[in-house]
Formats: sequence, structure tokens, C-alpha cells
Amino acid sequence: NTSMQVILSSGTLGAAFQAALLGIPSIAYSVDVDSGDELEGNEELEPILRTIVRESATYVLRNGMPRGVDVISINFPRKVNRDIRVKLVRASKLKFSEKIDVRVDPRGGKYYWLFGSLIEPEEGTDTYVVHKEENIALTPLALDMNVIGPREEVNMDSLIRLVNILNDALMRLQNSR
Amino acid sequence: NTSMQVILSSGTLGAAFQAALLGIPSIAYSVDVDSGDELEGNEELEPILRTIVRESATYVLRNGMPRGVDVISINFPRKVNRDIRVKLVRASKLKFSEKIDVRVDPRGGKYYWLFGSLIEPEEGTDTYVVHKEENIALTPLALDMNVIGPREEVNMDSLIRLVNILNDALMRLQNSR
Repeated sequence: NTSMQVILSSGTLGAAFQAALLGIPSIAYSVDVDSGDELEGNEELEPILRTIVRESATYVLRNGMPRGVDVISINFPRKVNRDIRVKLVRASKLKFSEKIDVRVDPRGGKYYWLFGSLIEPEEGTDTYVVHKEENIALTPLALDMNVIGPREEVNMDSLIRLVNILNDALMRLQNSR
Repeated sequence: NTSMQVILSSGTLGAAFQAALLGIPSIAYSVDVDSGDELEGNEELEPILRTIVRESATYVLRNGMPRGVDVISINFPRKVNRDIRVKLVRASKLKFSEKIDVRVDPRGGKYYWLFGSLIEPEEGTDTYVVHKEENIALTPLALDMNVIGPREEVNMDSLIRLVNILNDALMRLQNSR
């Protein structure tokens, strides 16, 4: 679920936003796999997912969401390097170039197939971290698309503390293997 | 489509966001009616809708979207006062309190009915302007839920010019009747 393009149409983020609107702290997790089968029994990825989910959920349960943050989105890459890290990054705007394929059904009616191909991601964004670096992107989001009016101040210290806790847990995991 | 709660689940805004992601300037219009029937032949509301849609679309076609704005959401009230005005306001966070009614189907299975009642709107927001004041709310939105990183500067002059053009057009319409 990297990029605003995907965030705005993801069911996972949609559920997290609806919970956050009701005041329930929400973290959305997503892995860059084509199907859940790629996760089952994946001995590389599974311990990392377990560690990050447990540590991030524990942090928020203990400390609450960092002030100014409504939802945290965490995105895992498909492949795992030995030195994988969590990075605190913005969501990029786009991820796919959108194309529409016009097709014709057996009765001669037209139908449309919406598809896209990955575009070159901008450095320092979630798409870059997940798809280029193969690291884990942690992206804090607010339920506020207003361009006018005040914005709640963000507790950056709390976000950085969370990222450090996650990276410490990853290091312990890597050292224990 | 007032409040972030509704904006994040509205199909109209969803279409506008997808267009804006592809760089197409988008304005989302919505009227606070229960059914389209309330609009057909509504001699009070129709000339106002026509005027605001024509003038706002013309402004954006001529000048482009104001810098820093991806989508403009315009919300009309159900009833029209003689001195109705357009107001430039933020989207509120919530509009409805959400409740879930647990029901039982004829075979004994449970099903759930999601419903909500209007909550007291905060002054100076879209929900207040549309539902309390019965004015028209113009809400500029950005495709950016990031809490970290830079934000594009907003061309407030262009937004205020647009609102003034719409209010001038409403005045001319009211004086011509």
C-alpha cells in the first residue's frame, strides 16, 4: 500500500481510516507480494513480519499514537536482505502509470481493463524504500486533506523512538540467527 | 460530501482524487438531498447549482487549479435562502456518530446495519456551513495525508478570487429574479 494513489483505494487503509475516525489507534500492514501463498512458510519474511507487527503494536498500545498521527502505514518488501531496516518516510504521490485497455467481449460489447506499470520512485518515499531499497517503510498519516487551516503539531520524537525500537528488534533478530 | 469521514468514502470524491492523481483538475459537487428526485424541477436550487457549476468550472479551466490544491469539493445545502453565499472552509473531521445495529435474519444468522446520526458540527467547517447555516461550502483539498515532509504552498489569493466570483454570480442571479 505504498503511494497516495494506492492509499486512497486500499481496503486495508480504508478500514484503518474508519477506525481512526472513531478514535481507535490504527496501524496498516502490507507486504509486496502478489498472493498470500508467497507468505505461507516463508522463513525469511515471517520472523520479520512477526517482530515488526508485535513491536509496533506494543509501542502504540503503551504510548498511544504519536500526537498528530492518525494512522501508521507499514509496508514490507517482497525480498528480505540480511541488513533490512525500517525507514520513516512520506508516501509518494504516484506508484503506477495508469493505462486503460479497451477490449471487446464475444458479443461485440466494449469493456475496459485498467492496469498500470510501476513508475520510477522518488528517493526518500515509501515506494522507493520498499521497491528500490527493499527496506521496510513506516509512513505516518493524518486524516486531513485540508489545504487551509491549522495542522496538528507532530510528535517527531515519538515517531523516531518507534523506528529505533523496530530497528533494534530487527538487529536482535538478525544476530540470533 | 462534507467531513473527512464522508470524503474518504465518497465515490464522487474518489473519482475526483483519481483524476487529480493523473493531473486532471477536478471539482466534486454534492447536494444535501436524500434522492435525486428532490433536484428535478427544483426551481429554487437548480439555477444556483447551474450558476456555481458553470462559474467554478470556467474559473479552473481559465486559471488552472489554485497552486497547492488538488481537488475542490463544493457542497450545497438542501434548502436555499435568498441570501445564500459561498464560504471557503475546511472539511470537518466527523459528520456522523457511527453505530452498528446487530440484527438476525430469518434463518437465525446475524447481520449488521451500519448507521449514524449527525453530530453537532464545529463552526467554520463544511458541515456547519451546509447543515447549520444553509450556505454553500467550498473546500480545497490536497492529495497528501503525510504528516512529515514539506507541503506545497497554497495560492490563497486564487481561492479567494474564485469564492468572490461565485458570490458575485449568486448576487447577480438573486437580483435578476
